Amino acid sequence: METPNSLTATEAAKRIEAGTLTSEALVASCIERIDAREDVVGAWKAFDRDLALKQARARDAGPRRGPIQGIPFGVKDIIDTMDLPTGYGSPIYEGHQPAANAPCVQISLDSGGVLMGKTVSTEFASRHPGKTTNPHNPGHTPGGSSSGSGAAVADMMVPLAVGTQTGGSVIRPAAYCGCVGYKPSYGLIAGYGVKENTRSFDTIGLYARDLDDIALFRAGILGLPHEPLAGASLHGLRVGLCRTMMWDRASAATQERLESTAAALAKAGAQVTDFPLEGPFAGFEEAGKTVSGFEFTRALAYERAHHLDKMSEAIRTIVIEPGVLVTFAEYQRALATLAACRAWLTDAMADFDLLLTPSAPDEAPEGLSHTGDACFNILATWTYSPAVTLPVHTGPKGLPIGMQLVGRRGGDMSLLAMAKAAFPVLAENGMK
Amino acid sequence: METPNSLTATEAAKRIEAGTLTSEALVASCIERIDAREDVVGAWKAFDRDLALKQARARDAGPRRGPIQGIPFGVKDIIDTMDLPTGYGSPIYEGHQPAANAPCVQISLDSGGVLMGKTVSTEFASRHPGKTTNPHNPGHTPGGSSSGSGAAVADMMVPLAVGTQTGGSVIRPAAYCGCVGYKPSYGLIAGYGVKENTRSFDTIGLYARDLDDIALFRAGILGLPHEPLAGASLHGLRVGLCRTMMWDRASAATQERLESTAAALAKAGAQVTDFPLEGPFAGFEEAGKTVSGFEFTRALAYERAHHLDKMSEAIRTIVIEPGVLVTFAEYQRALATLAACRAWLTDAMADFDLLLTPSAPDEAPEGLSHTGDACFNILATWTYSPAVTLPVHTGPKGLPIGMQLVGRRGGDMSLLAMAKAAFPVLAENGMK
Repeated sequence: METPNSLTATEAAKRIEAGTLTSEALVASCIERIDAREDVVGAWKAFDRDLALKQARARDAGPRRGPIQGIPFGVKDIIDTMDLPTGYGSPIYEGHQPAANAPCVQISLDSGGVLMGKTVSTEFASRHPGKTTNPHNPGHTPGGSSSGSGAAVADMMVPLAVGTQTGGSVIRPAAYCGCVGYKPSYGLIAGYGVKENTRSFDTIGLYARDLDDIALFRAGILGLPHEPLAGASLHGLRVGLCRTMMWDRASAATQERLESTAAALAKAGAQVTDFPLEGPFAGFEEAGKTVSGFEFTRALAYERAHHLDKMSEAIRTIVIEPGVLVTFAEYQRALATLAACRAWLTDAMADFDLLLTPSAPDEAPEGLSHTGDACFNILATWTYSPAVTLPVHTGPKGLPIGMQLVGRRGGDMSLLAMAKAAFPVLAENGMK
Repeated sequence: METPNSLTATEAAKRIEAGTLTSEALVASCIERIDAREDVVGAWKAFDRDLALKQARARDAGPRRGPIQGIPFGVKDIIDTMDLPTGYGSPIYEGHQPAANAPCVQISLDSGGVLMGKTVSTEFASRHPGKTTNPHNPGHTPGGSSSGSGAAVADMMVPLAVGTQTGGSVIRPAAYCGCVGYKPSYGLIAGYGVKENTRSFDTIGLYARDLDDIALFRAGILGLPHEPLAGASLHGLRVGLCRTMMWDRASAATQERLESTAAALAKAGAQVTDFPLEGPFAGFEEAGKTVSGFEFTRALAYERAHHLDKMSEAIRTIVIEPGVLVTFAEYQRALATLAACRAWLTDAMADFDLLLTPSAPDEAPEGLSHTGDACFNILATWTYSPAVTLPVHTGPKGLPIGMQLVGRRGGDMSLLAMAKAAFPVLAENGMK
């Protein structure tokens, strides 16, 4: 039997507005799912059922606030909330209680949303994992750093969640867990009250189970009127097949599924042509690591000075130790390289509507000590381009494999509309 | 008799390193100045003499940490500090105690600095003023929003201070109070832990009384080795005389002094030619206001939802009321206009080393209810270009008039070196 927790946010919002579903019943159904599954999945860092139900009842009793009226959402635990502690994924901040809601949380509440809880983040949205497992197989990573947000939405504990991406931290968990992830153009969603990793890259992103829900939540978190996605046709769509410089890091299964996806788009009428990354992209990955090293070590200055002993071995040796060695001249050169890559991509995409590229190298790797490789996500993140991942394939281990669509910087709504048109076609084509 | 508080940071650092001055004596001297003048100037929001002296003694006893070893600095009260409350210029946050130091504070401490206290900010770095007066005449505004930082440094209460600029909030207080203000290229100094006004524009800046001190503090706050400023020659320097679209808002005294400054630079061998702002700059001011309206109302979402009654009439009617009306389409168009202005300026500055432009329309206006007009500061802020103001003139009311130099984006060190070469020439030429 269909339970409210399995509804899309769009459908639930429609029923709430029509009076055939209450926010309280929806939230209670999500809580039931969490109760049943949380022991295995471990998606939540802070979860207060009474607070969630209280908000839901207030939404049911109060006037309509906005497009996500009565809909519960999860928030990555590097984002400040006034009613729930915010731990930034670190023992340094265990029990830390911010004074205020981050704007992205407050605006979502002002749009009618119900804060369901805080979802597990890796330590400071970096490498060291939290407790979350992959909802399809608890022996495998859910991906990171927005581990809990990706797992909670995929596991139907909540229809919507907020994450952040500095490398691949929104798209990868969505791909590994099997839901839709949306990494907007850089700067779209207000970033105050979000613990910084690398300011030049940090981007707030969204999780849902379909594209209409992404558009709905996008309106809610931006404080804008909801505009349902326009219809888009795959016929004549100019798709760049972008294998990236990382192609040899993709598994055979991922390579095969990318080619199959390209073929399915072509069969549906799209013009699919190769889109190699050239010119300044030779130095792209190195430049991004340099920028991240310089900025991360500074963003965490307080924690390094006062609590280095409470920081993980991974963050100390893999992130901070090389980061502190980056010189200002290297940082400036790296910023210039990335700016050149952005300009190159803008020019190169003039004749393309979107790029098709892997969401991750493979299915979610086995083990929980490492959240996987962001190598296929940095293209969109560091060029400030919008990206979505669609859960359309299954790999040989029975875990989801997502396909990533990347749009033009600022062309988010257009990308979402194209992704909506592509989703059923690609799902139909999905390989197992 | 010369007292340590009147030393430049560079000279004080030299003496501390040589063992002829202690940090404790320097800090004690600054405290003495604050005790003598704070009743009139009102530069400080939070000031704890014991904490400052304790840090100074620890610097004297401990190993050398970095370039600003033992030097006290003030921090604008919209920037988080773990040992002093941080009020963001608003009664909403009276007594608010952040858990951590903002990176810019922590890195300055790690570089040997002594946190002297928190300097007065206008409400959320917006329009509504704090208690600070102009150190040259308490009946006049010190400018804002970094009112306390500008006044404290100009009044020799502290040699260095941190401010932030979204419109003209670093340069204008420096110009009004009569010290050097430096607004770096956008994004230079780590911005986490700083209450946001408009993320697309917010820039951390520095106050000192000469250019060497700016370079010294810049190294300290960035966690970089100190490189003294290179020598620069005014001979052959290509200076664009930029009256901007706001020329008719400048007083006769300011106009006269700008022309006189241009003549002095030409006499010293610079090639001074007119630099009109054209093309997309027709829509520049309007676009910036649109961006600020959209972002500010979202950055303050929590305060608007929970504490609107504690927000000033000015912020509610002049900032928030129009801000909430900005549509997403208008915001996107405004961002595009500003991007076009940046590109236009980059091209137009290819043949120029720097621009000369007013720092403010006039001397500090009379009265404390309004901190003055940022119209001559938005050029540098919104185009992400570095700028300095030099206190080289006095106006008819006996108050300082600064002259502003604007460099190429990313060319901060070059701008500071040119400004250092120009400062004595322009001061010599200074009109009274």
